[in-house]
Amino acid sequence: MKDVEIRPGERIDMLYADTVKIIQSAEVFSFSLDAVLLAQFAKPKKKGKGLTVDLGAGNGAISLFMAHKVIGQIISVEIQPRLADMAQRSVDMNELNDKITVLNADMRDVFSTIKPGSVDTVVSNPPYFTVEEQTKRNLNEHYAIARHEIKADLKLVTTTASKLLKSAGHFYMVHRPDRLFEILDALRAVNLTPKQIQFVYPKVGMEANVVLIDAIKQGQLTGAKILPPIITHKANNDYTDEVLAIYAGLADE
Amino acid sequence: MKDVEIRPGERIDMLYADTVKIIQSAEVFSFSLDAVLLAQFAKPKKKGKGLTVDLGAGNGAISLFMAHKVIGQIISVEIQPRLADMAQRSVDMNELNDKITVLNADMRDVFSTIKPGSVDTVVSNPPYFTVEEQTKRNLNEHYAIARHEIKADLKLVTTTASKLLKSAGHFYMVHRPDRLFEILDALRAVNLTPKQIQFVYPKVGMEANVVLIDAIKQGQLTGAKILPPIITHKANNDYTDEVLAIYAGLADE
Repeated sequence: MKDVEIRPGERIDMLYADTVKIIQSAEVFSFSLDAVLLAQFAKPKKKGKGLTVDLGAGNGAISLFMAHKVIGQIISVEIQPRLADMAQRSVDMNELNDKITVLNADMRDVFSTIKPGSVDTVVSNPPYFTVEEQTKRNLNEHYAIARHEIKADLKLVTTTASKLLKSAGHFYMVHRPDRLFEILDALRAVNLTPKQIQFVYPKVGMEANVVLIDAIKQGQLTGAKILPPIITHKANNDYTDEVLAIYAGLADE
Repeated sequence: MKDVEIRPGERIDMLYADTVKIIQSAEVFSFSLDAVLLAQFAKPKKKGKGLTVDLGAGNGAISLFMAHKVIGQIISVEIQPRLADMAQRSVDMNELNDKITVLNADMRDVFSTIKPGSVDTVVSNPPYFTVEEQTKRNLNEHYAIARHEIKADLKLVTTTASKLLKSAGHFYMVHRPDRLFEILDALRAVNLTPKQIQFVYPKVGMEANVVLIDAIKQGQLTGAKILPPIITHKANNDYTDEVLAIYAGLADE
């Protein structure tokens, strides 16, 4: 591990039995369980031999978590300079500069760096809330941009993902199930066909609060597999063994 | 319970702590767990005060299982005379003639009996397999018609359901998750909006093999709730406690 500058308010969290370190900040951005679940859910083909792009990378959590399971390159695209800087320092700290490139850019401009149709895998944990959903709006601008569709909405994310991907490339996204139909429509509109869907439930007996989707560019619309449910918390609010195993990097891969 | 004629090869099965009896026949038709799950899943509004229609009723299983939770009338539409006859005798046996009417008819002709836009709740456990899915085709014609889209396909079922329903009426359907996108499209095409979806998994760690859908006529497309997962079997192939409770009529209602 390389020493890097840690700014005021930042802390270092560790994952996968402390093999991955990530700079977090309660004031600016902290990754959520959803990022950990997406990194686990994404299964790049050919051991991630090609190029993987993380759209809306935040502090680089998903890219960092996926680094151990891809042999190719990862480009982490993040529009917020403060978050991209955190991601870059985490990449430095983990000595992953040979694998992860942080690109501080609007995803609208990503094609000046990455050629359309050249990407094997796109992953994204995009903003979940529409701009109209003011109730959940965070006054902190960093969080607001990460959570609300201020800079990037579902349509932009899916359109960008599709344009980046090779034919038969995979798009892995985590989102909210109450936007499921909108998500399915947005994917179909850009020729991304869902092949696997996994619902995540906060506790036994509760409705799903997260959905993981694996879609294939120009895949045939024959219907998706609905993978086994993930339940994240026990009745006492502790993580379930399944989630603890994912955090520890011990889940099946 | 009234005595009725039981034909060769038929048996009587009991549900809900033996309060419901149903005539089954391994040679002709036996209801599946899916029918039991749908009857549990369907929650008619106002205690089922209005009219409920069971489209493709088979031996009347869903209608019989729902009889205790609706105060209004149920019409069970079944195209196969042999199955409609079994359903009628089960209705007789359970002394439910004041509540359930068995209509031996093609659902295409149902509007000569039931006025369009007059139904509060439609339930259906339609044929799951397309005519092309020959691998699962049963040589027995009774089973083939019940399982394959020979007499009624998804489009006919959803179109008929929508035409029968009042505005804001509910359509409850059980189907296969690998046809989920087709189902969502078929529902949308006839202005039925999914509001609740529940996936059913055969065992822990396995993919869903059944999906339950609650759709509302002319409902707003805002996204559905994904209800808690149902897991039907333990590792040793016994039913889970959840399923046993549903069979016993002890599940929440």
